[in-house]
Amino acid sequence: MPDERIATVDVTRVSAQSASRDTDVLAVEEPLEIRVAWVVNGEPREKNIAVTMRTPGDDADLASGFLFTEALIASPQDIESIRHWASPNVIRVALRPGVSLDSSKLDRHFYTTSSCGVCGKTSIDALRVITSSLPPNKSAVDREIVHRLPAVLSEQQAAFRATGGIHGAAIVDRGGTLIRLREDIGRHNAVDKVIGSLFQEGATPLSDSILMVSSRASFELVQKAVVAGIPVLASVGAPSSLAVDLAREFGLTLLGFVRDGRFNVYAGEVAPSS
Amino acid sequence: MPDERIATVDVTRVSAQSASRDTDVLAVEEPLEIRVAWVVNGEPREKNIAVTMRTPGDDADLASGFLFTEALIASPQDIESIRHWASPNVIRVALRPGVSLDSSKLDRHFYTTSSCGVCGKTSIDALRVITSSLPPNKSAVDREIVHRLPAVLSEQQAAFRATGGIHGAAIVDRGGTLIRLREDIGRHNAVDKVIGSLFQEGATPLSDSILMVSSRASFELVQKAVVAGIPVLASVGAPSSLAVDLAREFGLTLLGFVRDGRFNVYAGEVAPSS
Repeated sequence: MPDERIATVDVTRVSAQSASRDTDVLAVEEPLEIRVAWVVNGEPREKNIAVTMRTPGDDADLASGFLFTEALIASPQDIESIRHWASPNVIRVALRPGVSLDSSKLDRHFYTTSSCGVCGKTSIDALRVITSSLPPNKSAVDREIVHRLPAVLSEQQAAFRATGGIHGAAIVDRGGTLIRLREDIGRHNAVDKVIGSLFQEGATPLSDSILMVSSRASFELVQKAVVAGIPVLASVGAPSSLAVDLAREFGLTLLGFVRDGRFNVYAGEVAPSS
Repeated sequence: MPDERIATVDVTRVSAQSASRDTDVLAVEEPLEIRVAWVVNGEPREKNIAVTMRTPGDDADLASGFLFTEALIASPQDIESIRHWASPNVIRVALRPGVSLDSSKLDRHFYTTSSCGVCGKTSIDALRVITSSLPPNKSAVDREIVHRLPAVLSEQQAAFRATGGIHGAAIVDRGGTLIRLREDIGRHNAVDKVIGSLFQEGATPLSDSILMVSSRASFELVQKAVVAGIPVLASVGAPSSLAVDLAREFGLTLLGFVRDGRFNVYAGEVAPSS
């Protein structure tokens, strides 16, 4: 079966000495519209919640993870069905009878992400509206486990190996064992997919896990980890200044530049190897 | 004067052998709201057009570049003023009297990026609505010049060197000389900034130039290059499948993995070294 996540294209490979025709494998990028349908006082409602440029595959994980990490739904029982709708690039999430998409939540959602209350006040205040801090860590993550995370991610990242252009996000347990991995051309989509996959199984909050990403750590990745109850975010790349501020405020352990046998601790603590 | 693009934070640096307290320099990430004000039939209108997570600095370049590359304005004469508005994270673009933000253009903008006509049809059809193909290349870009692009970018990328976490976008002439460079935590913002900077000076269309980016090449970067009339897009990272499709459709030369003395030609042609 062809892999819908990758595409083969003709290419000319040029080096200092030569140029030759060849084929190359690329990550597929296509838009996905996420629609939500629900009922209020017997009246059906339906709304386009978001559009994201994503790599096809695991669209139900992406849609459910997005709704959960943006705090628009709280439980997998809120969802009646998720299916593609008229197009492979439209996915429709129907909420269970009695569950409504709280319009104040929707307002808060757009408040934080689009209509930009964030811009006038602080982003931390805006995030306070949708989520609370993580509970205190029972124990700090072990240093040896952190050193092993890049290998756990890269060993499993099939589409990345093929294309060199796709992000991976992995949920790993405290012992360093991979629980779930998803890939996408957008780093926030990879995180929504991996969290959404476990959310649908009722596994959230992911209180005993580590989120490892192949990308940089931005504001939005910290937000998603906090909402999902994940106490540790480890990234191969650099964090942003706002990611560090948010992590410290919400009690998330944030590790950056996790690669080549070293890493930096930007928030929280790491236990020395026993 | 402190550099608003970077922030210093406390960090613990951990290697296999040691852990030590230190300071680290990170890229700043803050939201920016872009507002547009204009007059229709004597009635003032004002609208929040976009919110983007960006690195502060060059906000007027970012706002003007965004409006131009999204085809919402066409000429620097369309702009009367650009200034911060009540907050350093809100920027307001006032259009010149007589210039209006064409509401059909605005509809098309949201059509392509938010409300997602794109999802049901093809992204190429949607882009056709806002721009036309590039004119045929007068001459293919020289292979030796392409090999020199990564050095041109990295020599000038001050904030990246400090943080390891920020994207650079450079406009380079056909001879390989740097014309302008901008940096941002978002790759699309870096491109909007560098194009917006030259747009405000009346230098668009940038028909004789090359756009070099430190990132991957996505759909949106190809769109922005095409609208700005730039015939060649070169990226350090991989292109997406949709970026290749768009480049071929619109006559853009697309080069990927431009690093370490080699590159791949995904669309268009490159001249052998003379």
